[in-house]
Amino acid sequence: MRHMSATQVARLIGVDPAARPYYRALADGVRTLIMDGQIPVRVRMPAERHLAETLKVSRTTVTAAYDLLREGGYLDSRQGSGSWTALPDPAVWPDNPWLSTDGDGLIQLHTAAPAAPAALLAAMTAAVEDLPRHGMGNGYDPMGLPSLRERIAARYTARGAATRPEQIVVTTGSQHAIQLVLGLLVAPGDPVIVESPTYPHAIDAARLRGARLVPVGVSHEGWQPDLVAGAMCQSAARLAYLMPDFQNPTGALMEDPVRAAVVGAARRAGTLLLVDETWSELALDDVPRASPMAAFDTDSRVISIGSASKLWWGGLRIGWIRTTAALARRLTTFRASVDIASPVLEQLVVARLFDQLEETRAERRRSLRAARDALVAGLREHLPQWRFEVPRGGGSLWVRLDGAGSTPLAEAALSHGVRLAPGPWFGLEGTLEGCLRLPFTQPPGLLAEAVVRLRAARDHGHTGAPRPSEPLIAMV
Amino acid sequence: MRHMSATQVARLIGVDPAARPYYRALADGVRTLIMDGQIPVRVRMPAERHLAETLKVSRTTVTAAYDLLREGGYLDSRQGSGSWTALPDPAVWPDNPWLSTDGDGLIQLHTAAPAAPAALLAAMTAAVEDLPRHGMGNGYDPMGLPSLRERIAARYTARGAATRPEQIVVTTGSQHAIQLVLGLLVAPGDPVIVESPTYPHAIDAARLRGARLVPVGVSHEGWQPDLVAGAMCQSAARLAYLMPDFQNPTGALMEDPVRAAVVGAARRAGTLLLVDETWSELALDDVPRASPMAAFDTDSRVISIGSASKLWWGGLRIGWIRTTAALARRLTTFRASVDIASPVLEQLVVARLFDQLEETRAERRRSLRAARDALVAGLREHLPQWRFEVPRGGGSLWVRLDGAGSTPLAEAALSHGVRLAPGPWFGLEGTLEGCLRLPFTQPPGLLAEAVVRLRAARDHGHTGAPRPSEPLIAMV
Repeated sequence: MRHMSATQVARLIGVDPAARPYYRALADGVRTLIMDGQIPVRVRMPAERHLAETLKVSRTTVTAAYDLLREGGYLDSRQGSGSWTALPDPAVWPDNPWLSTDGDGLIQLHTAAPAAPAALLAAMTAAVEDLPRHGMGNGYDPMGLPSLRERIAARYTARGAATRPEQIVVTTGSQHAIQLVLGLLVAPGDPVIVESPTYPHAIDAARLRGARLVPVGVSHEGWQPDLVAGAMCQSAARLAYLMPDFQNPTGALMEDPVRAAVVGAARRAGTLLLVDETWSELALDDVPRASPMAAFDTDSRVISIGSASKLWWGGLRIGWIRTTAALARRLTTFRASVDIASPVLEQLVVARLFDQLEETRAERRRSLRAARDALVAGLREHLPQWRFEVPRGGGSLWVRLDGAGSTPLAEAALSHGVRLAPGPWFGLEGTLEGCLRLPFTQPPGLLAEAVVRLRAARDHGHTGAPRPSEPLIAMV
Repeated sequence: MRHMSATQVARLIGVDPAARPYYRALADGVRTLIMDGQIPVRVRMPAERHLAETLKVSRTTVTAAYDLLREGGYLDSRQGSGSWTALPDPAVWPDNPWLSTDGDGLIQLHTAAPAAPAALLAAMTAAVEDLPRHGMGNGYDPMGLPSLRERIAARYTARGAATRPEQIVVTTGSQHAIQLVLGLLVAPGDPVIVESPTYPHAIDAARLRGARLVPVGVSHEGWQPDLVAGAMCQSAARLAYLMPDFQNPTGALMEDPVRAAVVGAARRAGTLLLVDETWSELALDDVPRASPMAAFDTDSRVISIGSASKLWWGGLRIGWIRTTAALARRLTTFRASVDIASPVLEQLVVARLFDQLEETRAERRRSLRAARDALVAGLREHLPQWRFEVPRGGGSLWVRLDGAGSTPLAEAALSHGVRLAPGPWFGLEGTLEGCLRLPFTQPPGLLAEAVVRLRAARDHGHTGAPRPSEPLIAMV
């Protein structure tokens, strides 16, 4: 087994002894050596005591540096057997915001996830009370609780697509729904159409399935039916993943005539439509009536996906699929290989929340509208060079940047305390570098502050500063 | 739209007016007519009032019958527009036990899923109170809540495998954990070893991944280390899925020297070990000390899976993976394509339950022991030809049948009101027809009744009778 001696590390490291805090400089030095390949991965590092002696610093300084490296995924320690350099995991890199949580002190503009609504706790308390009445049994209901499927079906019916509970499968969030549908209906190598830009984790799921991705452009103005039709026809697409309701990230809304045209084109091309309606309940302005895509379906081609995440809360992890009763049963059987069933309590919570959907929707609309308006006003004042249209619903702006690309901007923004999702996340093959999604699912005050920081990031680039020391979460 | 008049239904139905309870006989009659095609699907049934008048019974009788039909999926009712016959859903058909729920009146011996423990509701109530304190944020914590990961890690440490919270990923049940590990670490075509018999949905997950399955035998007496080693080596297995702790379905427990030998053999063969410890907390007798497989691991080869389903409740859908910190992070990133994160509230519930693990474990052991003993006594009295060893833990007996195979037995048992999981479910390529898993996760009285019915099914085969008229759930 390989190891590095304290002398070897000290020779390589070259940290300025005056650097403050020294432990951080030391950790940065080691990290850089690992990243540059000068200290290989899976090598035993010197004992803290030895390194401290060699560097002539206190042992607690080395301990703090090792802790920092461990936190960052650059060291693995086992009790009694020392510390080993580790594969620096993409998960903890600044440019992989995916793993970040709320608690790291940054303004989180990489997700478009609203906070929980006022009604949530009461619904949870009521659901715990419902549970014994519901009958707890063995806890497995692979298709979903009937009481929840009834409410979901009734909501589709109210929105214009008559639906029976047997047509609904409750899933563990909409991502799980996407995965189930792709897993059952798409074979590796099948062509699958995705919008560009689109929801990044749908791309992940389609890649995982081995699908061949075919992008079709969408802008704030929406879809070109002939382009969508052409893409389906020319690629002989097995399935097209579309978000006609306040498309993520553009916010575009597909109007009814376009819906009818797209469903018709899918029929002619033999393409299934996987329609993600995650944002469908969150129109923010008065918009033209948009019926569910399923309302235009004449031959069981439209599979709809919904979610509790945006109207209520992402932490619930409840979504659903609407399709034919027969396919709903096949999906239910198929999920035995995937996750068996969804949690009972969360389903009871969401059933409760459906009973006061309108109140929550009104609350959500008010807060999203205020947040959107604050973000728009801030951008117009501080970053007038950035271009965007104000979306009529959903949770994000799709911004066209001036000058530098969104990847360097996202890196610079981190040093200004803002976490961004750069444009290429939303597209295939590194495109969309000139674009940026800015969600407005945070409170207006935080968004106003974020814009000021974004301007600083744009104007001055990376400060080289460590992260802000005060957790900005206190501003919420 | 088609409809049936009360007179037409009354003419078809031919229920003995003396049948008791009459509402059930009436429901059975209508169901049979639908199943036989004499009443088509999507036909409007007469109003309850009219049918009651025609049959000369009370309206509440007809209401109860319609309720029963609705419950069974044979009727669809919409407020104000009457009741419609419905597609009898495979979900409620006797021959697709996977989709069945508790409510169909059969004794459910196809799953080994214990009912919720006494502590569950209090833990749920406490978790709802914890939630605001926990900070609700955007609800996404893809690796799992730190408070839960700490408890899971501490439990591994207490059991003999020192573990840090960074090594734990919380999953949405153990099936999801299996799917994540296979999805990230196994490529289509890779050889994967499974025990024979094994957990059916692990086979499903490996097939979904496109793995080449290699069975290795296990019996109540346990594993032959040289066979396991030979299988790993000869097949060049990428991964072996093992259940050393009260193996499902045999109940076998792998003793420490065998564990060490298997881990050593895996190291030599270059095979990863996916160790499913779902039943590890549920020793029922005094057993030799068995350390977690991870305790024998010297080169990060053992990936362990745990679950809240057996000790606590399957309806929680919480499981976890224990591995290296680096792989835990890769799995977390990977799950973005699968389900993003697990529900927050359920994680808080399980964290609470961990704090009183010993009490629940004692309660569970008492009840599983009583159930096991009732099942064993019943079988010895009524079916002495069936052979089995009494397992020292877990939740099921693995029975060797005499005479007819377990598939015809399972079909016959249905007509006697018992739902079974026949042997071939637990193996590859239709093997294990001479075996049957009998879980003892139901109450002793129900198991005693089940044995009497199983004897009848064995002795007399299929009765051709409809389902038992009284829901046996009332016996619980």
